[in-house]
Amino acid sequence: MTPRTPADLNTAFNLADLERLGRAALDRNALEYYASGANDEHTLRENRAAFSRARLRPRVLVDVSSVNTGTSVLGLPLSSPIGIAPSAFHGLAHADAERATARAAYTRGSVMTLSTFSNTPIETVGAEAQGRFWFQLYLLRDRALSRSILDRAHAAGARALVFTVDAPFLGRREANERHRFALPAHLSAPNVASRDELAQVETDSGSQLANYFQNLVDKTFTWRDLDWLRGQTPLPIILKGILTAEDAHLAAEHGCHVWVSNHGGRQLDTAISSFEALPEIADAVAGRSEIYLDGGVTRGTDVLKAVALGARAVFLGRAALWGLAAAGEHGVERTLELLEDEFRLAMALCGATRIEDLTPALVRL
Amino acid sequence: MTPRTPADLNTAFNLADLERLGRAALDRNALEYYASGANDEHTLRENRAAFSRARLRPRVLVDVSSVNTGTSVLGLPLSSPIGIAPSAFHGLAHADAERATARAAYTRGSVMTLSTFSNTPIETVGAEAQGRFWFQLYLLRDRALSRSILDRAHAAGARALVFTVDAPFLGRREANERHRFALPAHLSAPNVASRDELAQVETDSGSQLANYFQNLVDKTFTWRDLDWLRGQTPLPIILKGILTAEDAHLAAEHGCHVWVSNHGGRQLDTAISSFEALPEIADAVAGRSEIYLDGGVTRGTDVLKAVALGARAVFLGRAALWGLAAAGEHGVERTLELLEDEFRLAMALCGATRIEDLTPALVRL
Amino acid sequence: MTPRTPADLNTAFNLADLERLGRAALDRNALEYYASGANDEHTLRENRAAFSRARLRPRVLVDVSSVNTGTSVLGLPLSSPIGIAPSAFHGLAHADAERATARAAYTRGSVMTLSTFSNTPIETVGAEAQGRFWFQLYLLRDRALSRSILDRAHAAGARALVFTVDAPFLGRREANERHRFALPAHLSAPNVASRDELAQVETDSGSQLANYFQNLVDKTFTWRDLDWLRGQTPLPIILKGILTAEDAHLAAEHGCHVWVSNHGGRQLDTAISSFEALPEIADAVAGRSEIYLDGGVTRGTDVLKAVALGARAVFLGRAALWGLAAAGEHGVERTLELLEDEFRLAMALCGATRIEDLTPALVRL
Amino acid sequence: MTPRTPADLNTAFNLADLERLGRAALDRNALEYYASGANDEHTLRENRAAFSRARLRPRVLVDVSSVNTGTSVLGLPLSSPIGIAPSAFHGLAHADAERATARAAYTRGSVMTLSTFSNTPIETVGAEAQGRFWFQLYLLRDRALSRSILDRAHAAGARALVFTVDAPFLGRREANERHRFALPAHLSAPNVASRDELAQVETDSGSQLANYFQNLVDKTFTWRDLDWLRGQTPLPIILKGILTAEDAHLAAEHGCHVWVSNHGGRQLDTAISSFEALPEIADAVAGRSEIYLDGGVTRGTDVLKAVALGARAVFLGRAALWGLAAAGEHGVERTLELLEDEFRLAMALCGATRIEDLTPALVRL
Repeated sequence: MTPRTPADLNTAFNLADLERLGRAALDRNALEYYASGANDEHTLRENRAAFSRARLRPRVLVDVSSVNTGTSVLGLPLSSPIGIAPSAFHGLAHADAERATARAAYTRGSVMTLSTFSNTPIETVGAEAQGRFWFQLYLLRDRALSRSILDRAHAAGARALVFTVDAPFLGRREANERHRFALPAHLSAPNVASRDELAQVETDSGSQLANYFQNLVDKTFTWRDLDWLRGQTPLPIILKGILTAEDAHLAAEHGCHVWVSNHGGRQLDTAISSFEALPEIADAVAGRSEIYLDGGVTRGTDVLKAVALGARAVFLGRAALWGLAAAGEHGVERTLELLEDEFRLAMALCGATRIEDLTPALVRL
Repeated sequence: MTPRTPADLNTAFNLADLERLGRAALDRNALEYYASGANDEHTLRENRAAFSRARLRPRVLVDVSSVNTGTSVLGLPLSSPIGIAPSAFHGLAHADAERATARAAYTRGSVMTLSTFSNTPIETVGAEAQGRFWFQLYLLRDRALSRSILDRAHAAGARALVFTVDAPFLGRREANERHRFALPAHLSAPNVASRDELAQVETDSGSQLANYFQNLVDKTFTWRDLDWLRGQTPLPIILKGILTAEDAHLAAEHGCHVWVSNHGGRQLDTAISSFEALPEIADAVAGRSEIYLDGGVTRGTDVLKAVALGARAVFLGRAALWGLAAAGEHGVERTLELLEDEFRLAMALCGATRIEDLTPALVRL
Repeated sequence: MTPRTPADLNTAFNLADLERLGRAALDRNALEYYASGANDEHTLRENRAAFSRARLRPRVLVDVSSVNTGTSVLGLPLSSPIGIAPSAFHGLAHADAERATARAAYTRGSVMTLSTFSNTPIETVGAEAQGRFWFQLYLLRDRALSRSILDRAHAAGARALVFTVDAPFLGRREANERHRFALPAHLSAPNVASRDELAQVETDSGSQLANYFQNLVDKTFTWRDLDWLRGQTPLPIILKGILTAEDAHLAAEHGCHVWVSNHGGRQLDTAISSFEALPEIADAVAGRSEIYLDGGVTRGTDVLKAVALGARAVFLGRAALWGLAAAGEHGVERTLELLEDEFRLAMALCGATRIEDLTPALVRL
Repeated sequence: MTPRTPADLNTAFNLADLERLGRAALDRNALEYYASGANDEHTLRENRAAFSRARLRPRVLVDVSSVNTGTSVLGLPLSSPIGIAPSAFHGLAHADAERATARAAYTRGSVMTLSTFSNTPIETVGAEAQGRFWFQLYLLRDRALSRSILDRAHAAGARALVFTVDAPFLGRREANERHRFALPAHLSAPNVASRDELAQVETDSGSQLANYFQNLVDKTFTWRDLDWLRGQTPLPIILKGILTAEDAHLAAEHGCHVWVSNHGGRQLDTAISSFEALPEIADAVAGRSEIYLDGGVTRGTDVLKAVALGARAVFLGRAALWGLAAAGEHGVERTLELLEDEFRLAMALCGATRIEDLTPALVRL
């Protein structure tokens, strides 16, 4: 896991190249943790295939000498509608862990979503991100601990709370179970547990993480409990893991924002792909809340299609991790830079100069 | 065919793993008998592909701390809507034959459907199943023999009669014909014939079984004869092999339950897959009868999709046999356990805590 | 090209097996002539794929103890709705050439369509077929020769005239052109030309046949000329090569029968598959004429699907030639027998006992 | 890059054969420049796949003894509706460069579209084409230079101005960037720059061409500027790169003709294929302008389908270059000849004798 020197990044012309570099930098334990999807990985594959199938209908003879990819999410200006999705344990990818990711997000004018299960304390990440971060929460059975985490996130400068709603249980990433994924001894999850607590998790079978998670997370939380959650934090709340018009409507009714996601194909296999779910969700939300999306975004045209169909921003999960594994902070920067460049060019070639120009008419599903 | 020790089961994380173990434990004669479908095996493949294509629309923010997979079939409580379909000759897979399968069904709170063509007498199986079994009938040309079999099944504790209606003739499993499938000398079909009778079957060409079956089974039976059948047994009657709304309606009109099946792709090749046939059948039955389904079920999400679209339970054919071949009784138990665990997790990740929560809105076809 | 002994046929369990045997018996010149389709062979492949995609909806609980596959075409009783399509040069496959094919058709109660370009004189074939043959006509620019051929066909006992309408020019079977297909010196086309005439065909480039055909065939013939043709022969006229509702309607208006065909994918590549064209043609004909179909039939379920959707009979092109190449007369018999057996079983498993029971409700497209 | 002798062309029976010969004659720099599409090359593949998927519905019993493939574009008679699309740098393929292409277009009664980025001056090409050429314009930021190019094109005998509207920026052909495509030292772009100017282009990263193009081309041009352009030249204006009904309507409103194109899949990846875009464009134009199409045409049936759905002519990009690379002028002639022959045969086999007979009823999408 020696970090690659930035020089290697010159051989990366797209995110597939960065994925290759990132995979090569990881050992099996880490690679399987990042790469695997649930069960037969149908949804993992469909997330990308659904984007590829959609056809663009580009417009011509527009003055595209100046293309502005800038947008904002919940009032935070972004250089482009591309953020970083939460993922656990960046320390598996690089010694700088979440600090590197946060610095890259700040440098690129993006936003990082910090996972509850980071290897770096919230405060450290908050200092690096300088306001360009959201905090992802798994609601813990220990509500006092949950509240303290929320307080820390707010104090550290998080701009929003991303509340994950699709993981009362962890999906079965069979590769992880087969090879008994475990967090290496030098890493911990300082937001929620000491290293000693982690070491006590029984691993008679399957993945250490799955067993640990099973005990930690609250499975009772419902729409009615959202009022309680809102009372714990002044941050806007985003519900991450929405895949239906019905739930998107409920989210908007409860004053929450909507993050379309199937958890990168890691939870419920054969769940609908994020991109296929987006149109009915955009219809249901009808402008009441902001909509985000993750899952399968690897090309600038994917970003464009998602935004055209109603997403305010897309978020990178594995793509950011491949960059991080390849070259730390610079690798994540390069990931964001390549995708933003592709997105800007795609806008120009579609005859769009501002985010507002991206409308459903650009896409034939 | 030395049975594998239960230790091997620890390497099985899903039904595909068990299939691998089971196949490895079988000789060619037995493997081809279990594995083959009719002709070009289009329907065999489509049974599974149809499930994979269907997309789930999971709901979130439901209290899933307690998920109850329990249901009942014809009043018999089941730990989950997963039973064992009838298949002939379990002795090909394991020395304990149908006794092992029956014990596993009992242990797991499931239900086994015993084939007319078992290698174990009805009474022996009935004793092991302790009420957790149904009896599958091929109506024989010898009606007196048919009646005696029905009487024995009832006396042995069978809870229902599963009347197979899709096999007046056997489909052509060409691998079996090519290699002249024959029942090994140490096995018999004690419910219908002595070993001597079996030995007398001519096998000049093709499969011994097909020739034998050809002479044994009644091909004249029609809807009008159902009244006669009902007079022979007090058991509820399930018609197994229904693939159309028309026949499902007739079944309900005749007071029978409906088992959607294409015989595991072994009868009429290019027949519609069970899962694709289910929606029109659920519409036609309209709650008048119970509906079951077999064909292609290998994942918990398959179970969930079938139940969501109207099946009261699904039944495992080959999947149970791979478990039986891999490790006898424990192998079948493990098959049921793995699938039930996957189904429970799929329910939780769909926001469903009871069987009643599984509705068509969860599935996008 | 030593004919295989009939013993080999015991290893053939389906038409794919016979194809394997037949291909092995042919040299490249003959194999490419039979096997090739036009250009990229899209239509050649689609002819078969279209059948495979169609799903059957079998009915159950019908008395199928007696299944009658018998039907008739233009009053000629057939043991099943399976005939032999015209194809040129059976002498490439077997020394007995069209005599073998005719004898097999007679023996099996089928009907053979004799090609204008046979290697055997009409009269010889007529004697072997004993009334079980139709004659296929390419209208020649030499109308006197055409008339004399028609007279000979009628005198030889042909029951119908199959007038090929899709080949004013030959399609480009590129394999034939690449390797300069030529009729071997020991074969001739006695119905239309002497061996000397054939030998004079220039073959500077491409296929000898294509060059020859180019000069021989009348390209001016239109719907208006059908009256002339009807005046030349008392035989009923079947138009072979219809692929649209529009032309099927015109055929019926002109008192002709309709043979749905794309010439086995040998003429216009990417032309619609025969099976996909059938429904609109059956609608357009609306019972006024008989409808036949060739193209891609290799399974009994293919026969059933075509008949269910409106074909009175299907015809075998390459399939018969593989049988002929494999074992002469017995090979063709075996082809017909295997397919008829499959068709009978498919009927029984669909709950159909007579041809009249085969209706569109059995097929989901 | 030794040009092949015309003898080699005898082994080419279709455009795929010519492609093989042409590819073999090129070095990597040139091959990647011609062959590559943007990014993942989805659109590059779809251009061809969309043609293959469309099914033909051929008509029969038409007098096809005389088939006339002749048509005209903007009043210029063509032997068939097949022209040559603009592509840069024919000198990469053959020492005779655009002179060879122009001579072939003239000889075959076709029309060549000369690229702004030719390796041969406009006047030289004009002399060879003898009126059978159109001129393709990239509008340059240097409007004086643009005007001078337009004047030269008109003076050289160009019959129309093909104004490329889909390339304000170059798409990312990643193979070119990866291997740093550069124009060899012996070639220049005499219409727009001296060799010295080209040599000064920085190539720190990526493709020399992309960097050069970036600075040269005007990105501000809009529909409103078309009036200015019309004032600069008496030639009819064709807008090349239209993919939507909306833009096709605008083109017709502005008195321009419409060239349906996605730049051979080289600009915006996952843009709709040309053939799939054609129907809505033909509807929108409604006869007000002529419609042309490029992208994926490799078979006579492709030409026929495009014309049937509303294209007045199709244009060959890579296909002409493969012929040029294979054998210079004769190679391009052979490309045009093979495709015209296939198109004529396809017309005959569809029952069409004149271009006017090609209507949408011939195609099932």
